[in-house]
Amino acid sequence: MNSPAPDPRIEASFAQQSMMRSLQARLIEAGGGRCVIRAPILPAFCQQQGFGHGGITFALGDTAAGYAALSLLPAEREVLTAELKINYLAPATGDEFEAIGEVVRAGRRLMVVRAEVFALAGESRRSIALLLGTWCPVEPA
Amino acid sequence: MNSPAPDPRIEASFAQQSMMRSLQARLIEAGGGRCVIRAPILPAFCQQQGFGHGGITFALGDTAAGYAALSLLPAEREVLTAELKINYLAPATGDEFEAIGEVVRAGRRLMVVRAEVFALAGESRRSIALLLGTWCPVEPA
Amino acid sequence: MNSPAPDPRIEASFAQQSMMRSLQARLIEAGGGRCVIRAPILPAFCQQQGFGHGGITFALGDTAAGYAALSLLPAEREVLTAELKINYLAPATGDEFEAIGEVVRAGRRLMVVRAEVFALAGESRRSIALLLGTWCPVEPA
Amino acid sequence: MNSPAPDPRIEASFAQQSMMRSLQARLIEAGGGRCVIRAPILPAFCQQQGFGHGGITFALGDTAAGYAALSLLPAEREVLTAELKINYLAPATGDEFEAIGEVVRAGRRLMVVRAEVFALAGESRRSIALLLGTWCPVEPA
Repeated sequence: MNSPAPDPRIEASFAQQSMMRSLQARLIEAGGGRCVIRAPILPAFCQQQGFGHGGITFALGDTAAGYAALSLLPAEREVLTAELKINYLAPATGDEFEAIGEVVRAGRRLMVVRAEVFALAGESRRSIALLLGTWCPVEPA
Repeated sequence: MNSPAPDPRIEASFAQQSMMRSLQARLIEAGGGRCVIRAPILPAFCQQQGFGHGGITFALGDTAAGYAALSLLPAEREVLTAELKINYLAPATGDEFEAIGEVVRAGRRLMVVRAEVFALAGESRRSIALLLGTWCPVEPA
Repeated sequence: MNSPAPDPRIEASFAQQSMMRSLQARLIEAGGGRCVIRAPILPAFCQQQGFGHGGITFALGDTAAGYAALSLLPAEREVLTAELKINYLAPATGDEFEAIGEVVRAGRRLMVVRAEVFALAGESRRSIALLLGTWCPVEPA
Repeated sequence: MNSPAPDPRIEASFAQQSMMRSLQARLIEAGGGRCVIRAPILPAFCQQQGFGHGGITFALGDTAAGYAALSLLPAEREVLTAELKINYLAPATGDEFEAIGEVVRAGRRLMVVRAEVFALAGESRRSIALLLGTWCPVEPA
């Protein structure tokens, strides 16, 4: 079964992120307070032991969470990450990252969003990190 | 005045991180529970508004904090990031990131480390993020 | 339907916490990596606007998470909170707090646990905080 | 040398917190983005091993940080804790807690504040926890 097509505004914003292009990340799903991103675990972004770098796990979780938040806002708004915490559960090994962001509370001033990042290897899918953070809806600059 | 030369073991580990190479990051200082890393704010790693991506700010803070921790351990040990929280203070604009990690408490089981990331632009140096996290000393795999 | 009776070792430990007695907290459920605690929202522990103090929300979430962790360990072990983050979702108003802790990952060195705290008012039950943190299994002192 | 007398508005708000009274906490200093609170380590608020409960350490750090934030705002404003993370460094033993909050960044929408909690025992003063969190300036209800 296919995921619903992502919100076109989020597709456009995602396409503007040079970081997502550099990571070869794809926007799989975005809408209704939820966002899914996938990206290969690339040899160019590893830590000293050859695992995917924790900063990439974080960046994908952060981005999925931010677009989950944005998907609940009117078209002219933007979101800023205020803060974000990550707990690592396992090393990033395998073929692909899958990051899933889900809004927990959508307030006027603040949005609380959680994300989970998985490592996909063949048929297996292992949770490698949990994130919990805060986003601010803002007017675009 | 020059910084003290980095601990050679940390230089070797840093050189093995493909992520640090991809970010063109340089290890400026590492020893005695403190580590400084600098990296250019590259066009290839930006978010949708053209600022440096928060995931890069995080990755540099994480790496500086991790090597600050490692610099206090005997030669045969490694460290794992257990968890890390970042509060963003300002967007990443300018020429360079500077990430400074400092160990707060070096326990046998856990090390608590804080980091601060600055954006350098010409003569100016602005704090853009604070991080606080936990590392585990481990035997190498 | 009744909850399963709490693990007797956790009941004993809970009974030793003067803090839980002072808060009139009750251990509802504890076992298999999960723990539920309830406590009245008492007038003696409020903040300046008369809502339950965020420190109590935190203390109950922390305690539920810690006992969720302990419930997976052999009888002679203890757990220490390494770090814990809370995101507040709504003010603590109503009759009772309900804190639910659930282990996410039970490692040898570290356990990652999340908790959610609810405010109960008559028939209603509202989520007021999410917590995510790290516990260390240790030998008792 | 004496600390400067606390801002009267913060003294009034502090006096309204039943939680602070129940903990026998005293407001030592508040103004200019900084706040200091002291409270005895009371037998009624301990965890199962007889140390001061981590929830009290948190509550005092949270309160000191919140009043540090409030001290920078005009008289008619209030602050809400959005989120707060604590890293524990040592158990709470001794005579007194001392919590010090300091504003790191005072934005219009968000304030980032850090706090440190110490345990005082006779002449000694030991850091037992670091906190880093986010506050929102709001209109009073």
